[in-house]
Amino acid sequence: MEQIDAHKCFGGWQRRYTHESKVCDCTMTFAVFLPPQAEQGPVPAVYYLSGLTCTDENFVNKAGAQRVAAELGLALIAPDTSPRGHNLPGEDDSYDFGSAAGFYVNATQPPWAGKYNMYDYVVEELPALIKSEFAATVSDKASIMGHSMGGHGALVIGLRNADRYASVSAFSPIVAPGQVPWGHKALGGYLGDDRAAWRDYDATALVEDGKRFPGPAPLIDQGLDDGFLEEQLRPELLEDAAKAAGIEVSVRHQPGYDHSYFFIATFMEDHLRHHGKALLG
Amino acid sequence: MEQIDAHKCFGGWQRRYTHESKVCDCTMTFAVFLPPQAEQGPVPAVYYLSGLTCTDENFVNKAGAQRVAAELGLALIAPDTSPRGHNLPGEDDSYDFGSAAGFYVNATQPPWAGKYNMYDYVVEELPALIKSEFAATVSDKASIMGHSMGGHGALVIGLRNADRYASVSAFSPIVAPGQVPWGHKALGGYLGDDRAAWRDYDATALVEDGKRFPGPAPLIDQGLDDGFLEEQLRPELLEDAAKAAGIEVSVRHQPGYDHSYFFIATFMEDHLRHHGKALLG
Repeated sequence: MEQIDAHKCFGGWQRRYTHESKVCDCTMTFAVFLPPQAEQGPVPAVYYLSGLTCTDENFVNKAGAQRVAAELGLALIAPDTSPRGHNLPGEDDSYDFGSAAGFYVNATQPPWAGKYNMYDYVVEELPALIKSEFAATVSDKASIMGHSMGGHGALVIGLRNADRYASVSAFSPIVAPGQVPWGHKALGGYLGDDRAAWRDYDATALVEDGKRFPGPAPLIDQGLDDGFLEEQLRPELLEDAAKAAGIEVSVRHQPGYDHSYFFIATFMEDHLRHHGKALLG
Repeated sequence: MEQIDAHKCFGGWQRRYTHESKVCDCTMTFAVFLPPQAEQGPVPAVYYLSGLTCTDENFVNKAGAQRVAAELGLALIAPDTSPRGHNLPGEDDSYDFGSAAGFYVNATQPPWAGKYNMYDYVVEELPALIKSEFAATVSDKASIMGHSMGGHGALVIGLRNADRYASVSAFSPIVAPGQVPWGHKALGGYLGDDRAAWRDYDATALVEDGKRFPGPAPLIDQGLDDGFLEEQLRPELLEDAAKAAGIEVSVRHQPGYDHSYFFIATFMEDHLRHHGKALLG
């Protein structure tokens, strides 16, 4: 692991690293914010999964999360959104598939299989790296959040690993990739045509199949002027599945807000306090 | 004036505009954040002048200023850092001269004269445009702040127009361009070799020449791990001039912080409260 950037920020440190990823078979980049409390010993972490076209940097630069994380004593861990540099055919041709669009799955279809394993990267490899490299500053306790494609990732990863995360939240998430065009393209491309395999990466299907969120009802903020709302995001599908399953999800519909980081920044404090309560009591 | 972007943000609106500038003889871009209070009537404005290599967007995306502006009821106005698109010889060759490096002066030397008039743009043309186009939402009361080259701009403009601004602040400003390499290049290029002309654009020289800041002692934050501190910024030159003049400047030396927006975001709240107190009482 190599540190490639570091800035003091709100009394803590915003750092950026590269390392060789086994599960993605390439060099990966991620960002860590360590709050000032980490100087006194390990603090819990909140993972943030970004959306289409993003790297680790969008969140770090635009979300304004460090202020609240520094107040509460939370580390922030932001992975990249896909493997990079494999030069696979078509890898860089679309904004919604291939590079910057890993969709937090383990791909089974050639040429993506063996490389596009962002699920294992986020759930296994990156936490193991954090555990070994940040033992003095970051504890085992973690929560997970994300935006859009990353909101999908956070919901799915939380549902499938309820023992590993204290809480889940999302901004304008894709809640049912099996039922929307972005998901059809991504899950079809990475997992193939057998839609049964898609259900493991579909928060709405996972709820239908009996999976449950860890911690408090997941907090979801959705802007009502989000141009992707009706065709790609469709939070009502998760709300309906949750209702049928008798579980709570807290979906807040925010008038006037769009899909941008201006929306995310506005409600970031609420999300971090949601996680802080679950992680710190 | 044409609106080219708009996002709801912290209950207010982050908007971006273009217009035809007479003093810069080109199309100029600027950003305005209107806090929710502007729906009830005109609110005071804080102008933010950016540094080398920036546009209006760095501040808007990275400084985290909208949250506090929305709380206090302050508009935020962020102009670009230079005229654009004149295709003058050498205009785009350096990061510290020409485009994105207007230095908030009125150029007198060819080929910049008649075009690189960022001083008049910030002091006269943009406020006049705001007055005519935002009469219902932005009042005449204003303060001014900036970063690095923009900190220089804010200090100079505040000193030369003490009747027009309620308060001044700066992050890691160039305080004495006449005594540092960035300033030698910029003032020499825009104003020519007669250094007497430079004094009108040098905060330290203006204090020596009797100019005084409006409002409370100007708030200046300077990171002590800023790579430009010793050669280009040299805040002690302004501190010495202020001491000799018997006036106060509040320079805070911040250990560990660098020249980046991570530093700016950390102390933005203090600066906006400084201005809010002067503007709102």
